[in-house]
Amino acid sequence: MARKASLSGFPEWLPQERLVEQHVLDSLRRTFELHGFSSIETRAVETVEQLLRKGDIDKEVYGLHRLQADEEGAKAEDKLALHFDLTVPFARYVVENAGHLAFPFRRYQIQKVWRGERPQEGRAREFTQADIDVVGDGELPFRYDVELALVIVEALGALPIPEFKLRVNNRKLAEGFYRGIGLEDTAGVLRSIDKLEKVGPQKVAELLQQELGATAEQAEAALKLASIRSEDTSFAQEVRALGVSNDLLDEGLAELEQVIGEASHRAPGRVLADLSIARGLDYYTGTVYETVLVGHEQLGSICSGGRYDALAAKGNRKFPGVGLSIGVTRLVMRILSQEFASASRHVPTAVLVTLADDGSWSQAQDIAAQLRGRGISVEVAAKAEKFGKQIKYADRRGIPFVWFSTDEDGNLNHEVKDIRSGEQVAADPKTWTPPAEDLIPQITSAP
Amino acid sequence: MARKASLSGFPEWLPQERLVEQHVLDSLRRTFELHGFSSIETRAVETVEQLLRKGDIDKEVYGLHRLQADEEGAKAEDKLALHFDLTVPFARYVVENAGHLAFPFRRYQIQKVWRGERPQEGRAREFTQADIDVVGDGELPFRYDVELALVIVEALGALPIPEFKLRVNNRKLAEGFYRGIGLEDTAGVLRSIDKLEKVGPQKVAELLQQELGATAEQAEAALKLASIRSEDTSFAQEVRALGVSNDLLDEGLAELEQVIGEASHRAPGRVLADLSIARGLDYYTGTVYETVLVGHEQLGSICSGGRYDALAAKGNRKFPGVGLSIGVTRLVMRILSQEFASASRHVPTAVLVTLADDGSWSQAQDIAAQLRGRGISVEVAAKAEKFGKQIKYADRRGIPFVWFSTDEDGNLNHEVKDIRSGEQVAADPKTWTPPAEDLIPQITSAP
Repeated sequence: MARKASLSGFPEWLPQERLVEQHVLDSLRRTFELHGFSSIETRAVETVEQLLRKGDIDKEVYGLHRLQADEEGAKAEDKLALHFDLTVPFARYVVENAGHLAFPFRRYQIQKVWRGERPQEGRAREFTQADIDVVGDGELPFRYDVELALVIVEALGALPIPEFKLRVNNRKLAEGFYRGIGLEDTAGVLRSIDKLEKVGPQKVAELLQQELGATAEQAEAALKLASIRSEDTSFAQEVRALGVSNDLLDEGLAELEQVIGEASHRAPGRVLADLSIARGLDYYTGTVYETVLVGHEQLGSICSGGRYDALAAKGNRKFPGVGLSIGVTRLVMRILSQEFASASRHVPTAVLVTLADDGSWSQAQDIAAQLRGRGISVEVAAKAEKFGKQIKYADRRGIPFVWFSTDEDGNLNHEVKDIRSGEQVAADPKTWTPPAEDLIPQITSAP
Repeated sequence: MARKASLSGFPEWLPQERLVEQHVLDSLRRTFELHGFSSIETRAVETVEQLLRKGDIDKEVYGLHRLQADEEGAKAEDKLALHFDLTVPFARYVVENAGHLAFPFRRYQIQKVWRGERPQEGRAREFTQADIDVVGDGELPFRYDVELALVIVEALGALPIPEFKLRVNNRKLAEGFYRGIGLEDTAGVLRSIDKLEKVGPQKVAELLQQELGATAEQAEAALKLASIRSEDTSFAQEVRALGVSNDLLDEGLAELEQVIGEASHRAPGRVLADLSIARGLDYYTGTVYETVLVGHEQLGSICSGGRYDALAAKGNRKFPGVGLSIGVTRLVMRILSQEFASASRHVPTAVLVTLADDGSWSQAQDIAAQLRGRGISVEVAAKAEKFGKQIKYADRRGIPFVWFSTDEDGNLNHEVKDIRSGEQVAADPKTWTPPAEDLIPQITSAP
């Protein structure tokens, strides 16, 4: 686990670590598919123009060039770059394929993304994201904001990670409140509130007053709002007790109440209203989500997202959406470094079929094929070395069972040995199976 | 299927097409794991230096640059580029992690690779490869050359593709033969023979004479060798009948006999000795493989590889290997364009739980959770529209079953309707399951 990546910011896993990552990916896929999300992938590259449409992130993007492109070729080609998230590519995909998709379109997308940032704890330059989104054609019922919170809680709850909290807020609520107290630059206020965790309330109050011309009372009210959090719908009373009146605020309150009301019933303790959540990206227009691992808050959010009224547009046609993105690599790095989970063995192989003599390889392959037919992973020894050496090979690779076949007067006698216990028993290749827990590598959580 | 990629050479699939691709990927993973291959992934980027070590391919490589890197930053960073295959990265991985791996190390690796080539039928700029390799520390028994042919035949045989032929040759055999007839520039001869399919024997004979100074007799002998093919070991007699004597030739003959002998027995008709196979890449040192889809030969090889005596080296320590690479995207493009297979539905969802009224959403989620607990993919309607509209939604998305729950005197009455047949029956959310063929989308091969 202490191995350093040979290229800073580009982590790679050993086979036993990859098994943990695969377990995480398989588990996410399973949850998403059980909830009716379709898998898609988009190409790793977008045109630079497409990527920079939202502005503000150009420093982090890796552009592409052909190493030996001639001048003409370089000019003729679109300028390409690696995608830095899965939302921008998904928006393009929806617009391009709108005629082929049934809306509301539910998709999950698990892919690598790249950002040329300075690598640090929890931040890699190449990392895997797992996104779910529901996108409507024209309109999208609010209920999907509730549903996606529940799906994500179920997905994260199935992973070998410690307790987590999905923190939910609503942009309408915050913006309505700011307007209600007379602060019109709501984006500016959100940007300041976003710094709360980093710089503290004192400093945010100064920012609001110096940069946005807020009065001390307005700054105090904004900070009071941001201090509200609850695991049930009681946050609404607290907000109303602040005595601010605004239609957008009421709308946002009603929406957040729906999310928290349903979640407190279906996933008690895992979802809370947290009115300090701002989320930097500017395209969210309602619900916003982020998620922390309890006790690992310094890791940052492991899963974030929100509602966007116009994820994409095609002429007058708008595609509103709601979605979340799980930082898979960030999670897997933490699972591995903290040993939250590990694989019961390093290889898929459950059984090594040994060779009594060099001529029996083909016969050994027949036995292996019989076992594989029942889903058992099998290797056949490549050489008829002494049995001790063949057993050692299995032991070194972490293969739990070793198979012996001996020819007695033309009949094959089969025995299988559990090399952990040393127990050796007669076995029939047509029927023998290992105990369920030895069939494939198990990912076990630390107690 | 006739959709054009919005960026030439970068194919993307619709959800129903992605289901076919996932089926292919899942099937390959299953076969590889049943044979004891461990999954690894390497980063998408390598240093340019690492990628160009083998020379000759620099025109196709995509280099990376940060869009807004300042001069200093650009200098300080390693020059990075996207990998163009999975062999070069794997070799680096083996060297870097040799101390953590148990040899012979068996790995599979399924990832995207990038080549800045001119896109054409069967050639994309971004595509997925699925590689298997076995790598030894110092030495690697020849038997793995036999085993890998069998694993690949099993892997390809499980895919929804037409008949294929794995064509096998041996570099030692060819080189020994050329030396035996007095042609010492064996690499040059191989390069000429490699053009056989493109330019024909007449032209190759000219090349051999004009460029390599071969006599007409030598050229004829080389072409005779290249014309030999057999599905059993009879090729060996045909080679010996040419009357050439050379130790390396004998070694190569014995090796190829082992592969073909075992394969003709275990996978009759799918593997043949084809002494015209040269393979362009220069690091193969023994067995070479390539694979054609019968009737689709113009697609090129869908799976190629071979033996390399030094895949990687670390000081004096050498890591010989043998492996093959399946062109997954090339195969999937062909499966889709020729409709070799298709998905039985477009979404994972088997059941839509409808809403009788807007207040029953949470109750509907309870029913959905019960069904999901048995592995059934379920969506819940977002709005209590008229049942006709909710059924239409399911129909439009290709969801086969619709669930109705009605409250009768405080008791919930459940019914489920197969919207294809119209049949509607009473059902218990605790026990009902759809027929096995409707549980998940089935990938069915064209008859």
